[in-house]
Amino acid sequence: MSKAIKKSNLKPWQEKIHEVIFEADTFAGKTFDIGLLIAIIVSIIIVMLESVPSLNEKYHDSFYLTEWIFTIIFTLEYVARIISIGKPNKYILSFYGIIDLLSILPTYLGLFIIGSQSLMVIRAVRLLRIFRILKLARFVKESKTLGDSIKASRHRILVFLLAVLTLSTILGTIMYLVESSEAGFTSIPRSIYWAIITLTTVGYGDIAPITPMGQFIASIVMIMGYAILAVPTGIITSEFIKTNNQPQKISTKSCNECSSEGHDEDAIHCKYCGAEL
Amino acid sequence: MSKAIKKSNLKPWQEKIHEVIFEADTFAGKTFDIGLLIAIIVSIIIVMLESVPSLNEKYHDSFYLTEWIFTIIFTLEYVARIISIGKPNKYILSFYGIIDLLSILPTYLGLFIIGSQSLMVIRAVRLLRIFRILKLARFVKESKTLGDSIKASRHRILVFLLAVLTLSTILGTIMYLVESSEAGFTSIPRSIYWAIITLTTVGYGDIAPITPMGQFIASIVMIMGYAILAVPTGIITSEFIKTNNQPQKISTKSCNECSSEGHDEDAIHCKYCGAEL
Amino acid sequence: MSKAIKKSNLKPWQEKIHEVIFEADTFAGKTFDIGLLIAIIVSIIIVMLESVPSLNEKYHDSFYLTEWIFTIIFTLEYVARIISIGKPNKYILSFYGIIDLLSILPTYLGLFIIGSQSLMVIRAVRLLRIFRILKLARFVKESKTLGDSIKASRHRILVFLLAVLTLSTILGTIMYLVESSEAGFTSIPRSIYWAIITLTTVGYGDIAPITPMGQFIASIVMIMGYAILAVPTGIITSEFIKTNNQPQKISTKSCNECSSEGHDEDAIHCKYCGAEL
Amino acid sequence: MSKAIKKSNLKPWQEKIHEVIFEADTFAGKTFDIGLLIAIIVSIIIVMLESVPSLNEKYHDSFYLTEWIFTIIFTLEYVARIISIGKPNKYILSFYGIIDLLSILPTYLGLFIIGSQSLMVIRAVRLLRIFRILKLARFVKESKTLGDSIKASRHRILVFLLAVLTLSTILGTIMYLVESSEAGFTSIPRSIYWAIITLTTVGYGDIAPITPMGQFIASIVMIMGYAILAVPTGIITSEFIKTNNQPQKISTKSCNECSSEGHDEDAIHCKYCGAEL
Repeated sequence: MSKAIKKSNLKPWQEKIHEVIFEADTFAGKTFDIGLLIAIIVSIIIVMLESVPSLNEKYHDSFYLTEWIFTIIFTLEYVARIISIGKPNKYILSFYGIIDLLSILPTYLGLFIIGSQSLMVIRAVRLLRIFRILKLARFVKESKTLGDSIKASRHRILVFLLAVLTLSTILGTIMYLVESSEAGFTSIPRSIYWAIITLTTVGYGDIAPITPMGQFIASIVMIMGYAILAVPTGIITSEFIKTNNQPQKISTKSCNECSSEGHDEDAIHCKYCGAEL
Repeated sequence: MSKAIKKSNLKPWQEKIHEVIFEADTFAGKTFDIGLLIAIIVSIIIVMLESVPSLNEKYHDSFYLTEWIFTIIFTLEYVARIISIGKPNKYILSFYGIIDLLSILPTYLGLFIIGSQSLMVIRAVRLLRIFRILKLARFVKESKTLGDSIKASRHRILVFLLAVLTLSTILGTIMYLVESSEAGFTSIPRSIYWAIITLTTVGYGDIAPITPMGQFIASIVMIMGYAILAVPTGIITSEFIKTNNQPQKISTKSCNECSSEGHDEDAIHCKYCGAEL
Repeated sequence: MSKAIKKSNLKPWQEKIHEVIFEADTFAGKTFDIGLLIAIIVSIIIVMLESVPSLNEKYHDSFYLTEWIFTIIFTLEYVARIISIGKPNKYILSFYGIIDLLSILPTYLGLFIIGSQSLMVIRAVRLLRIFRILKLARFVKESKTLGDSIKASRHRILVFLLAVLTLSTILGTIMYLVESSEAGFTSIPRSIYWAIITLTTVGYGDIAPITPMGQFIASIVMIMGYAILAVPTGIITSEFIKTNNQPQKISTKSCNECSSEGHDEDAIHCKYCGAEL
Repeated sequence: MSKAIKKSNLKPWQEKIHEVIFEADTFAGKTFDIGLLIAIIVSIIIVMLESVPSLNEKYHDSFYLTEWIFTIIFTLEYVARIISIGKPNKYILSFYGIIDLLSILPTYLGLFIIGSQSLMVIRAVRLLRIFRILKLARFVKESKTLGDSIKASRHRILVFLLAVLTLSTILGTIMYLVESSEAGFTSIPRSIYWAIITLTTVGYGDIAPITPMGQFIASIVMIMGYAILAVPTGIITSEFIKTNNQPQKISTKSCNECSSEGHDEDAIHCKYCGAEL
């Protein structure tokens, strides 16, 4: 009802297109979403394969043709979105509106400027739209829980990251002073790069200490990385547990008799006074 | 009782074989399981050693002989399973039925086609049967708890993996644009491969950025990998805690009135019927 | 009030400077803190860039000039801190007092001794002052929670680190005996260095086993590293959960009789005096 | 009392030595423990430095002398332990008794056989004795909690390790079939070694896929390693939380009036009926 009232400024054919493109509850909307998803994935794969020199030499013409087909499809989608919405400006200036435009622009620009095709990979961001289909199922709740937990711990993660960056700067500088430049510690920024590689336990090995003193300090850095790695895990896990354990066990119902709270979801009687909930 | 009724279409000798092969509670069944387990492990070790060029040259004949001995043992086991079961089709088409067939087929095929022997490693999957022995002990509960926790968090892990893949695609493409091909970033798929190596903190170092800009972005990717690594740990840990802690929060008392269970430790009244506990 | 009484031995102009430099609640104090923060970060970036040989050749004179400008700024700040505080000795001998001195000394010493400029990186430690600004917002609580959790688990982490070091020594020595020196295991300290690299899952690859026996032992070490890595995470996470969950288990109600706090959510009577809540 | 009765078969001078060597509560015992600890650490450092070729050439004689001094000290300690204990056999055959013997034997054997000196590193195990000093403080409780948690989750960790080994075998074999031997996948055992390196996120890079197909599979393995790494962390963390949260919050006291349990450690009155505890 309120939905129909809100959309009253749309003509019936616009409303139909709107329903197919923006909604995901009807069969047509679901089909459209899945089709679009496949088109996005395939177009991204094409962009990827195009970047492989040996494949590009062989199938250059096929890639060029497919690219244009997808660009036309996405252009039609973009136009359909604009004409079927009440306030086109709001869509055009939204995150997805800009992404949608950026995903078709590079091909057109490629007619005039050579080299801009690599921008087409912005389409990768369109993959985020995949979550719209996931909305159909119970995924919404899950991804919301994930997002909420990370959001709730963002302050602590920020404090943690600042501490890690300060630590990396100090450790990198110490290694720059201690290690020879032959081992790869040619400047402080490069040494900080090494410190981050080591603290995060990535460990490429492109820069590695070769002097005994450097290796001794590196060992301490690695063992510190142990404890440090535990911190973000602890932050996010404790947040997850809070979100995960609460809503599923405890009901929000309060007893009518003794107004006690904290009853289980499946409780029929108050566990304190015995009255029916 | 119900068990005997179910198996009534089996002859006594079939029932005996069935008990030895399929059950693990009797002494004969346990012995058979352990014997089969050893045979599987030894045959897998033979397949492994056969793949080492220097060993294969030296002991080729011994390997060939042992391989045939195990193939005959596993063939007899396969036949015994088929003839001792009520509905052979159900076994033949089951996961383990197919694995059992695939683990003997390659040796026979090897008589006709050269090179198919490497398929014998499918026997590795047979190692999964090891869990059947573990069933005997209290391992069932443990592995079930493990499995349940992972199963319960599969939606969230899927959402997480999709996010990681999207992120890897975007980061890989950025690095492809920024880094020179000399450093190993020769195509977008290879750059995505690098992004996955870095985000998962594996860090082979076969592809590593060499320009300052590339190293700067790589540092950001590594620090992001920190926080990202914490997410699956958080998901699974919070699930484990739920499964692990629940029995301790829930009392073992059952209601005298309605004999329902699962009351809180501090409950005074039954939460289902209201009777005092 | 109590604040004014405490500072009564300061002259008005000293009090004003004190408020700007040491407090972060007023607009002037906030502006000063942000300005100082920017100066610290820029001066650290200059020190970093100076260490890059190609940049130092090009912009040596600019770096030298900027360095002197920042040194004069930090000298003025140091003098202002000393004259605006009641007990200058307490500041001079405090952690930040020493850091502040060390961050200006190297430039002056550089006039007499060549090579001491690398000490200027001590300024990195000054970055820790960033947390003073963060104090303004709600970050205090967050960083305090983080610190408390790590502090509370320091005994267990120490025990854990001692166990890891003992293990690394044993594993390193075994590998030194097993592996050839060609693979990089030239001495026991180097082998211990390898063991730490492997146990912490950093894995540079500069030292890696090449014999089958060495690779077999390395595999066991890696799988052990799995379980070991889980221990500090478990310690810190369980501590975080305790700190994070407590306020939710504890009611905010205070007893009407004895006004004590910290009662459980489901408590009916005060646990200290027995009065009904 | 019961202690004195137990030791009655020891002469006074034996009891005195026993107290110094085996107990850690008296001043003499504490001093002896710390002295022994320092001797162990220094002797281990000597063994380490002796293995560095350049140092051994220079200081060979000093190392040889120090080694003999420590061997005599540890021999005296070993003899003192035997003569001051009621049942010497029990000590000689215990874990530490064997370690103590093994830590002095290599030097004596070195007089007859050349090359046995490397066995001296068994002294590293003696470092475990460090925990005896830690016993003095509150570390006992901590290390016991750590040990209990790991012990309680040993079944689940075993199941997990078996699953990881099965998975590594399968993944290693697939990579052996897919990848060329040029990349280092020369045999199945080596490929399994690679799979373990990758799943544990160590990532040496000595063996790394070079074909697109191999890199694709490797990417999947790495992402699987993500989720797998979370399992042991989850197991141990959930165990820690159980041990960590329980004893410190909940007292074992039960109310005399209503015999309710689960009161806080600092509770004076029953939270359910208000009676004094």
